[in-house]
Amino acid sequence: MAAAPLLDPVLSRIDTDLEAATARLLDLMRIPSISTDPAYQAQCLEAANWLVCDLQSLGAKAEIRKTPGHPMVIGHIGEQSDAPHVLFYGHYDVQPVDPLELWDAAPFEPAVENGPSGAVIRGRGSSDDKGQLMTFVEACRAWKAVHGTLPCRITFFFEGEEESGSPSLVPFMKQNAEELKTDIALICDTALFQSKTPAITTMLRGLLGEEITITGPDKDLHSGFFGGAAINPIRVLAKVIASLHDEQGRITVPGFYDGIEELPEDIAAQWEALSFDEKAFLGDVGLSTPAGEVGRTALEMVWSRPTCEVNGITGGYTGDGFKTVLPARASAKISFRLVGGQDPHRLREAFRAHVTSMLPPDCSVEFRGHGASPASVMSTQNPAFEAARGALSDEWPDTAAYIGCGGSIPIAGYFKDILGMDAMLIGFGKDDDQIHSPNEKYDMESFHKGTRSWARVLAALSAKT
Amino acid sequence: MAAAPLLDPVLSRIDTDLEAATARLLDLMRIPSISTDPAYQAQCLEAANWLVCDLQSLGAKAEIRKTPGHPMVIGHIGEQSDAPHVLFYGHYDVQPVDPLELWDAAPFEPAVENGPSGAVIRGRGSSDDKGQLMTFVEACRAWKAVHGTLPCRITFFFEGEEESGSPSLVPFMKQNAEELKTDIALICDTALFQSKTPAITTMLRGLLGEEITITGPDKDLHSGFFGGAAINPIRVLAKVIASLHDEQGRITVPGFYDGIEELPEDIAAQWEALSFDEKAFLGDVGLSTPAGEVGRTALEMVWSRPTCEVNGITGGYTGDGFKTVLPARASAKISFRLVGGQDPHRLREAFRAHVTSMLPPDCSVEFRGHGASPASVMSTQNPAFEAARGALSDEWPDTAAYIGCGGSIPIAGYFKDILGMDAMLIGFGKDDDQIHSPNEKYDMESFHKGTRSWARVLAALSAKT
Repeated sequence: MAAAPLLDPVLSRIDTDLEAATARLLDLMRIPSISTDPAYQAQCLEAANWLVCDLQSLGAKAEIRKTPGHPMVIGHIGEQSDAPHVLFYGHYDVQPVDPLELWDAAPFEPAVENGPSGAVIRGRGSSDDKGQLMTFVEACRAWKAVHGTLPCRITFFFEGEEESGSPSLVPFMKQNAEELKTDIALICDTALFQSKTPAITTMLRGLLGEEITITGPDKDLHSGFFGGAAINPIRVLAKVIASLHDEQGRITVPGFYDGIEELPEDIAAQWEALSFDEKAFLGDVGLSTPAGEVGRTALEMVWSRPTCEVNGITGGYTGDGFKTVLPARASAKISFRLVGGQDPHRLREAFRAHVTSMLPPDCSVEFRGHGASPASVMSTQNPAFEAARGALSDEWPDTAAYIGCGGSIPIAGYFKDILGMDAMLIGFGKDDDQIHSPNEKYDMESFHKGTRSWARVLAALSAKT
Repeated sequence: MAAAPLLDPVLSRIDTDLEAATARLLDLMRIPSISTDPAYQAQCLEAANWLVCDLQSLGAKAEIRKTPGHPMVIGHIGEQSDAPHVLFYGHYDVQPVDPLELWDAAPFEPAVENGPSGAVIRGRGSSDDKGQLMTFVEACRAWKAVHGTLPCRITFFFEGEEESGSPSLVPFMKQNAEELKTDIALICDTALFQSKTPAITTMLRGLLGEEITITGPDKDLHSGFFGGAAINPIRVLAKVIASLHDEQGRITVPGFYDGIEELPEDIAAQWEALSFDEKAFLGDVGLSTPAGEVGRTALEMVWSRPTCEVNGITGGYTGDGFKTVLPARASAKISFRLVGGQDPHRLREAFRAHVTSMLPPDCSVEFRGHGASPASVMSTQNPAFEAARGALSDEWPDTAAYIGCGGSIPIAGYFKDILGMDAMLIGFGKDDDQIHSPNEKYDMESFHKGTRSWARVLAALSAKT
């Protein structure tokens, strides 16, 4: 760990600079950088330029890099030296804001408000990801202000398409591999485990999305005149969906569990020690019973076990009242969360073969793929992990935990696959931040202690070399 | 049968009056009497008034009878005598016309056009039911013109709410039972069996409609963060739907087949003799294999066997692209076509109990009923049936058949249950009439030979007394 004499004044500086740091974040949040809506292209560019200027104010060589979509922001700080070289990734784009009428205040007129458990920064992007991104930038600013230099060489890498599928990300990483390769990647786009327990996310589930449309008759039929004799594609679809799980809650697609190993004992022991409140987790959404595989805990179900969920289904008449139609087609959106070594491309084929094998005569199926990314499982062998975990534990009341995340953040896997480097996901979001929803917020505590956490992590990483 | 000397001049008169009869039908069709849309209330009244005037021109005592909805038209012709007394039912209201852009000509600017197999009367209501209704009225007009009288006493009973659920029908029939009670009811709202084969429909399926909504979590969830641990109501709904049929295509609701008997041998033999072209029936809608109970013919599947169909299903995200939502609820509209003595009210309870029994922990279900009418099975013991069958066989190339109909026409059952009288369904529609759809038409042959058929039926019924 960095000697306290170096770190302590940085932490103090962060404390005294909190108001100014918050004002800078609010500036960035006022730019409506909605990446998925072409109407906001100029605003995305404006947010990227804002970040370039801000990085330059730290003494970084920063610039915009064009892509076919929204630009990347790249910044470098620190000369070639023995100091460790870290890359920091965040994204400056935000989700759309509809339904606008559910916001209590204008989404792009952010403000600091008093919430039931302390001050919060309210507005679109506060937690996802502008607020999180700025915790790292502010930590760097404080080091620089106190010591005139940073403890590590740093490459900043900010994306503007994370909320719209990151179409330019992989090509950009491949084209700029040499420039982006560092000792480790730091990503700030995840959450605390609990409000007092910081976390490093080491397992992210992969995602395989499939849309299937089953067609029977060549037109919609009257269910009186044809019902009984004509195959009903909604019934076929229901049978397919019902077939995807067995009575034990296991997924029946042949070979589905290939490549999955049981949780390593040390990870299992750590998770056990987290005393995850399964009852509260489910109770918050009106449930009481874990619905996944028999014999698994709820934490396993969402962190380390794969799923098959139906995200949407439609067919026939769905308006008010009743219409006795026997429809020509029915469709469903089905997604699989993947873990361990599950191969999304092989599973896509296995799923399609399974569905096709269930079709009765006269039915056909059309598949449409929506994404296929494997799980990311970060090895914690890299000493940076334990260094960061110690640093986080120093800042927060509870010891930092290695946790899983049921969602999918493909960038973590890209750093490993494309650049051959480990990625460490550290974030300070909370479950009630309402990301992607109206009234998004970021706790002032997340912002303040998040910034202090990064200062500690940078110190710890520099001391470990 | 009536002596040819009485009938033949009536048939000749029908032939020579066809152009004028068509002009009268077009007049009636120009009135947009769309009963389901309150904007057309005045037009429904206008159509009722048109019919009153037309019946009066035949010498009938005719008038409008108010109901809480659109009015009934009642007319009587003929004095108390030994002549048989028949009631004729039809409906003057029509279906809405959207999607309007799919019509080749304005729906309420009807015209006679040349189709691939002869002249057709094109426009909304041509077949359902204004054209069919007027076949009977025109037959009466011809009798009256030739003989100055009619061979039967006739009560005309025209409804204006058939296309909007007939809310006033049962109360009206109960309140006017004495006036409406005759020897037999004639209904013209069905189709020929095949284009050269007239038919009397003696079996109509009943209908039970149920809408079910299954709720799991109390809000929509992110399928990454909750998928696996949280119950997915779409999956539950799919399992329920898949459970409703067994491997033999039989419906699994307990007691579902109670009250159903095998088809009587004489009816089975008649149906066998129809040489129904199963291949063409299914081939017309892009199918090849009957999808119902193993061991049943397609004709049984649509005429004499019950069904369970899903008419609509919806849940989660159904727009373009993909959204990894785990939805709070999913719903389906499910209908049963009933036959024989199946009791819709008992089956509704059995269905609801079956669905409820399949719910996993944390799920609830809400049911909404949509109609419950038993099947109508007309006994052909009444000699009027054989008399009418002979009359129809005289007019058309093929012998008339007793057939079933997969759809549901509750009025037939009401005549039996409320008024204790048999009802005979005779109609001249064709499968390609596009009723309820854009470009509705009625073949000129249906209109012409339909009118001649009724002249023959009236003659036959009067001769049988």
